[in-house]
Parts: sequence; C-alpha cells; structure tokens
Amino acid sequence: MTTITILGAGAMGSALCTPLVDAGCKVRLWGTWLDDHLLDAVEAGEPHPRTNEPLAAGVRTYRSDELAEALEGAQVVVMSVASVGVPKVAELAAAGMAKADALWLTSKGFNEDEQGNIEQLPDAIRRIAAENGYADLPPLVAIAGPVKANECAGRKPTATIFGCKNEAIARKYAQLASTTNYAVDYSDDEVGVEICAPMKNVYAIALGISDGLEKATGVPHHNLKAATFTQAVKEMSLLGKSQGADPATAFGLAGVGDLEVTGLSGRNKVYGVRIGRGETPSEALAEMDRLEQTVEGVPAARLALKFVDQHAGDIKDRLPLLNAVANILDGVDEPVDAILARAVLPRV
Amino acid sequence: MTTITILGAGAMGSALCTPLVDAGCKVRLWGTWLDDHLLDAVEAGEPHPRTNEPLAAGVRTYRSDELAEALEGAQVVVMSVASVGVPKVAELAAAGMAKADALWLTSKGFNEDEQGNIEQLPDAIRRIAAENGYADLPPLVAIAGPVKANECAGRKPTATIFGCKNEAIARKYAQLASTTNYAVDYSDDEVGVEICAPMKNVYAIALGISDGLEKATGVPHHNLKAATFTQAVKEMSLLGKSQGADPATAFGLAGVGDLEVTGLSGRNKVYGVRIGRGETPSEALAEMDRLEQTVEGVPAARLALKFVDQHAGDIKDRLPLLNAVANILDGVDEPVDAILARAVLPRV
Repeated sequence: MTTITILGAGAMGSALCTPLVDAGCKVRLWGTWLDDHLLDAVEAGEPHPRTNEPLAAGVRTYRSDELAEALEGAQVVVMSVASVGVPKVAELAAAGMAKADALWLTSKGFNEDEQGNIEQLPDAIRRIAAENGYADLPPLVAIAGPVKANECAGRKPTATIFGCKNEAIARKYAQLASTTNYAVDYSDDEVGVEICAPMKNVYAIALGISDGLEKATGVPHHNLKAATFTQAVKEMSLLGKSQGADPATAFGLAGVGDLEVTGLSGRNKVYGVRIGRGETPSEALAEMDRLEQTVEGVPAARLALKFVDQHAGDIKDRLPLLNAVANILDGVDEPVDAILARAVLPRV
Repeated sequence: MTTITILGAGAMGSALCTPLVDAGCKVRLWGTWLDDHLLDAVEAGEPHPRTNEPLAAGVRTYRSDELAEALEGAQVVVMSVASVGVPKVAELAAAGMAKADALWLTSKGFNEDEQGNIEQLPDAIRRIAAENGYADLPPLVAIAGPVKANECAGRKPTATIFGCKNEAIARKYAQLASTTNYAVDYSDDEVGVEICAPMKNVYAIALGISDGLEKATGVPHHNLKAATFTQAVKEMSLLGKSQGADPATAFGLAGVGDLEVTGLSGRNKVYGVRIGRGETPSEALAEMDRLEQTVEGVPAARLALKFVDQHAGDIKDRLPLLNAVANILDGVDEPVDAILARAVLPRV
C-alpha cells in the first residue's frame, strides 16, 4: 500500500483524496496554517467547505504543526497548496520531499524569486529544496488537465494527465492513481504540462469577457469566443515550445481540456464576464475580493508576461492574446471587444 | 470588382453576403426551390428568417429558375446549400462553376453516392461535375471555422479559414474576403478543413450530452465535457491525418474553434442535451423534427462511421468517441454517461 501525503487541504488537495483512496492508497492530508477551518469541518464530518463533498473515508488529517509526522515515511508527497504558498511549504517540507520516491504537483502558477526572476513551479521547488540542503529531490510529476475539484471529489468522470521527465515514472503513477472515474493519462512533457496550467487561467479571463459581451450587448459573441479559444490554445503551444516542451501537449488534456473546463465555470471566467459586461477591471476585482473570490488569472497574467520577457522574448509578438489580457487588466482605455478582436482575429 | 455568386439562400449563404459586400465584391444570392420563402422575406425588406439580420445592401437575389443568369460571368461560385442538396445543385451549376476562377464551399458533410461510397464534399462535387462533362473545375476553396451565421451577418467579430490545395489561391481569396469583422486565415489543407466540418457536428452531440447530464443529475459534468472536447479534437486530427491532411489543422479554427462554437449553441448540441437529460435518441429527434430543427449530426454520424469503414478502417479503434455517439444514437441500452466516460477517459 502506497502512503501518499497531500500538502494543502484546500479544494484540490482534499478532492484528490477520493481517487487515491479508491485506488487503494493510504492517504494523509496536511493542512497549512490557513486550512484549520477546512479541517475543522471535515473532521466534524461535514462536507469540505470548498468542494461540498465529504472527505474520502480513511484519510488521516494533520494540522499545520504536524508536518513532520505527516511526511514521515511517505512514498509520495503531493504539493497542492495555492501557488503563492509553494515557496514556504517547499522550504518546510524539503526534508520529507527528499526522502519520498516522488513529488507530485497540482499547484499551478509561476513563481517570482527574490531577484524578480520568474520560474515555473517545478524549478522553484527544486531551487528552494536545494537552497535548504536537499539538492536531490525525487522525480517530479506535474498534474494538470480538466479537473474541477468538486467533481473529482464526487467521483464524477474525470480525465487528467501526469507529466514527468521520466515517462516510465509518469506511467507508473498514472496506473497507480487511475480509478473508474479518475482516469490518468501520462506524458514525458513536464514543462508542457506546467506551462498550460497557469496560462489557461489567464486565457479563461478572455473567454469570460466574450461571454460578458453578450450580457452587455444582448447578442451572443460566440464566434469571438471560439476564435479566442483557438488563439489561446495556439499561444499555450507556442509558449511551451519556446521552453522545450512538445507543442502537442497544449492540444491535449493539459491545454485544450483544461481551458475548456476553466472557460465553463470558475473564478477567472466569472471575473472576465464582469469585465465583458462593462465593469472596469478594478471594479470587477474589488467585487470579487468582497465575495472572497481569488482570481488567480490576474497575478498569473502579470507573471506570465514577465516570464515571457525573461525567457521567451523572441515570441512575445506571437502572443497577442496574452498581451491583450494584460492590457485589459491594466485598464487600457479602449472597448474590450475591440482589443480582443484585434488579438484573436487572423490578419492575412 | 469581383463578382461572386452564392448558391443557397439559407443562413450561411445569406450571412456570407455581409462580409463579401463589405469587402467590395459584387454579390449575387441564388435561392434553391426550397428557399423561396427566405427570398420573399429579404426582398420585402424583412430580416432573413434564419439569421434575423437584413440581407447586405446591394445583393441581387435570384430565384431557383434563374440559375443561369445568376452564374453568368461569376468569377467565384460559392456552394452554400445544405449538404443533402449539394449533388443536385452541383449538377445544375456545373457549367457555371467550370467557367469561374474558383469554387468556394461552405456546405459541410459527407456525401453518399449511388453505389454507397462515402465521399468528402469536394470530391463529390468534382465527380458530379465530371460526370456532367465538366472535368476541369477551377480550384476549390473549403471554408470552415467557428462561424455562427447570424453573428457573421450582424458583423460580429468572426474568424474563419479558407483551405485550398493551392495555398497561394487560398491566400488570395482570404485577402479578398477579409474585413474588419470577418477575418480569414488560409491553409493548403483542403482535406483537413473539410474533415473537421461534419465531424464537429457529430461531436457536438456528445458535448450536449455532457451538458444534459447536469440537468438530469443536478450536478455539473464539466470534467466529462472537457475530456469529451479533448477526445473529439484528437479524433478529428487522427481522421484528417488518415486522409492525408495535416494533423495540426484540427487544432486550429477548423477543428478546436468550430467545435467550441458548435458546443456553445446550435441544434446538434441541443439534441445532445435532450439525450443527456434522459430522452431517448428517437424521442429527442422526434421532438426536434416537430420543432422543425434539423440535426445534421445525426446523419453525419452514420455517414462518418461508414466513411471510416471504407477509407480509414485501420484507425477505427482509435475513434472511440465517434463509435460511442453512433452507439448512443442507435439506442444502445446503457446509461449515456457510462458510454461517454468509457469513450473519452484515457486508460493506461
């Protein structure tokens, strides 16, 4: 029986318990110092507040001050905290991660180090572990794909993809984690899988804007939404390729699939809808804040643009949709439909 | 000034008049024997009954018995009738098509000849013209991409793609037809563009089923919908490749883009929603018939399966979603969510 310790008791961390328990793993769920109220609820037998589903039976929970116990003897460690928490948790958990056979990663995003360099999360975790004396981390498995946490926790049919530079390891864990309802594909393209994850949050804002234009004008903008979707996929593929990824990764579950699910619902899309129907980006963000709805795509857009400047400057002009979203979020004084159309309509 | 004759005064034929007039072309719109009521309306100054938009100013309309006049001196002929009407119209218009510089095609589908062979529409048109003494048709430009006709007619931002075996010709006409709101990309992949067009109608039924499951069960099946979308794109790419197309065509406007827009609304999706929420396929089809809503994806699924049997038998097992939709339409006695999940969830 494989012992798996999930770091982060939020929506995705708690949801992942369901298939892993179903797959026969021994699962531990560690909550950060921000997760006490979530663990209070599930320990009281209530549904998890973020997924509205009960925690899978048999999962042992650990509080923030029990990290060492949670990691003791774990064969797999899963990093599932929000991307802003990854550096701190990576530092605290470095010893336990180094002793595991593999480190899985469901956290999504870019990380900005103290010098202002933007890193992909796997690189950030490896660097931070090394700085703390653990240069030899086990293989890292990037997890992405179209997974709404509540559906995963509720055993609805779900497909995902594990990306590891060592394909045999990706396959091994895909087989370990697959259940009837949680189907895991695998790939050797860690970088491609990781690039898609934060970018789709940025692009989901644009999809939401297209939806919002219908509310603003009374007529659908489905053609614009579909052109935006297509351009987003193209840009994820291009950006991945610029970082050595397989351009096809963006055309599968990690790109097309995750963008589809993120454009159906979720906070980034809702934020975009608000902008599309006429709120300024700052008004929309203030309202989302008031509702305690974090919009990951907003910081992701800024970090993505900086990442491109630092690591893919030669293709910046080929990412007009990323630039358009960043301009819209900056509050550029031009109708959003015009900005979006200029970015996604082909010009011959 | 380029004279363009559009054959078929339905939604797409009439919608296409808008960008072509805006682009400075002289546009003629010919209606078939089924289109008299549509032309009656637009000639009376009313909106077109299928798009709810007025016909573009300056378009000259022709009735079914005025085909020769409509074609006289046309430099471009556009085939825009429903796919079932293509053989008859191709026969009637063969002489006029042969004299033009190019034949554009917005009709989508497969065609079954009298021997039961399933053809792509461009091949059907070339064969029928040849059988009528016009073996030398001008270059054919396949038009696809995410274009809802009403939005195109209403000058909403729209992206589309022209595919011609001669890329220079595709580019020439893309440049001719592009306007601010109607942006045309181009490709040398006629086959890839044409394969995606009917297949996306089949797959849109599956997307609708995922949506309908939410109505049936009260909980979203977004993960399943996204996995279905991803598998559909993969199958369009595979099927295209099997016919000599560029597999990447399915990842652009003709595949990903058109599938996105077709999954947002439209009859195929609505039909799928009915099945997902619990109607049998035959009940759902009867109700769509009663509402005078033709569901193109239903015959397309049957023709596509036969096309695969005849022309791509070696990849049939790699098209589980096509097979699943065909099984569902056949009324296989198994819950549709189980059929769909088995088809689209990866198994390692």
